[in-house]
Amino acid sequence: MSTSTYDRPVLYSYFRSSCSWRVRIALNLKKIDYDVRPINLLKGEQRTEEYLKIQPFGFVPAYIDNRTGKTLVQSVSIIEYIDETYPGVSLLPKDPIERATVRALVQAVAMDIQPVANLRILKYVGEEKKGEWAKHFIIEGFKALEAMLEKTAGVYAFGDSITMADLTIVPQVYNGVRFGVDMTAFPIISRINSTLSELPEFKAAHPSQQIDCPADLR
Amino acid sequence: MSTSTYDRPVLYSYFRSSCSWRVRIALNLKKIDYDVRPINLLKGEQRTEEYLKIQPFGFVPAYIDNRTGKTLVQSVSIIEYIDETYPGVSLLPKDPIERATVRALVQAVAMDIQPVANLRILKYVGEEKKGEWAKHFIIEGFKALEAMLEKTAGVYAFGDSITMADLTIVPQVYNGVRFGVDMTAFPIISRINSTLSELPEFKAAHPSQQIDCPADLR
Repeated sequence: MSTSTYDRPVLYSYFRSSCSWRVRIALNLKKIDYDVRPINLLKGEQRTEEYLKIQPFGFVPAYIDNRTGKTLVQSVSIIEYIDETYPGVSLLPKDPIERATVRALVQAVAMDIQPVANLRILKYVGEEKKGEWAKHFIIEGFKALEAMLEKTAGVYAFGDSITMADLTIVPQVYNGVRFGVDMTAFPIISRINSTLSELPEFKAAHPSQQIDCPADLR
Repeated sequence: MSTSTYDRPVLYSYFRSSCSWRVRIALNLKKIDYDVRPINLLKGEQRTEEYLKIQPFGFVPAYIDNRTGKTLVQSVSIIEYIDETYPGVSLLPKDPIERATVRALVQAVAMDIQPVANLRILKYVGEEKKGEWAKHFIIEGFKALEAMLEKTAGVYAFGDSITMADLTIVPQVYNGVRFGVDMTAFPIISRINSTLSELPEFKAAHPSQQIDCPADLR
């Protein structure tokens, strides 16, 4: 895949995928123009021969870096790459302890909540039990996250600047609400989510604003 | 918590916890002496008032950095902190694309496998179904990891130097074997695991070598 193939980064994305959503926010915050290639997970487009050549595991997102022609996978890894190689706002603090604290907030969502209650897992859990399953693990994860945020939050998840931690919170709250989680039990998460949701970079990354969002969900 | 309290870092650890194990390997590779405080997850010691003051979510590991007196949580975050602040071998490459690739390998285990098949989840799945559950998701995850390693592996997971990716593989293979996963289906993962398992830093981090390992498992 040669560098000349792409003028801009390419994001293989599904409008409702929280991992795709995180990367969209990062790209917007860094003011990077990118092209979207929608992959409809419900229609199984992640399993087409064409997509499996790009992303052998059939997950979204995948990210093609136009400067190197390289394809990257795993949302948090893609976000760290974008943060490390583009100018503009920094999504991690400079102090090592503070970096570790932000990464721990990221991982509290990206390791302890999202992977346990995503489409792949819920399909395996089965139609009958998936609602209860998702709700249980999102609530358990939000309890831990809320306790962490009591110590770290300012306007945003970590103090008064946007960090990687904020990028994971908004999509996870959206999923929590979809599964009927009572967000009044998590006042800090709720407040941060409301504040972030008003920012243009977050608005533009919302599922309802994506080209592959069905008309009835816009 | 003052700096003077600790002469060495403190790791709250359970001998069989794969997340604790990853951090033990990192500390050994960096040649950092540390104190272990065992937390017996089966006896519920993660739920004692004393431990919840240190780690409010009752997860292991927790890490007290003796230089700052700060407590860090989330194994991958702790490992990145150790890597960023101690001299010696570097656990991430310098090139941004290579760093992103190593992080993607780490996350393929630390996000897509371990959180889905750990003690907390298996308890919720229930005694009857937990074996089948763990095996299914470990096999699914190893298929993806094996495909990634086809492109990245040398002697180790990423080329011929040890990286963070190697630290996640060894504990996950141990868990796979415990749940009866046929590792011959994953020749690259198996080869890397065998190579790593011979290294003194990995040997010393093995569950059987921990002070809280029961005599019959040594």
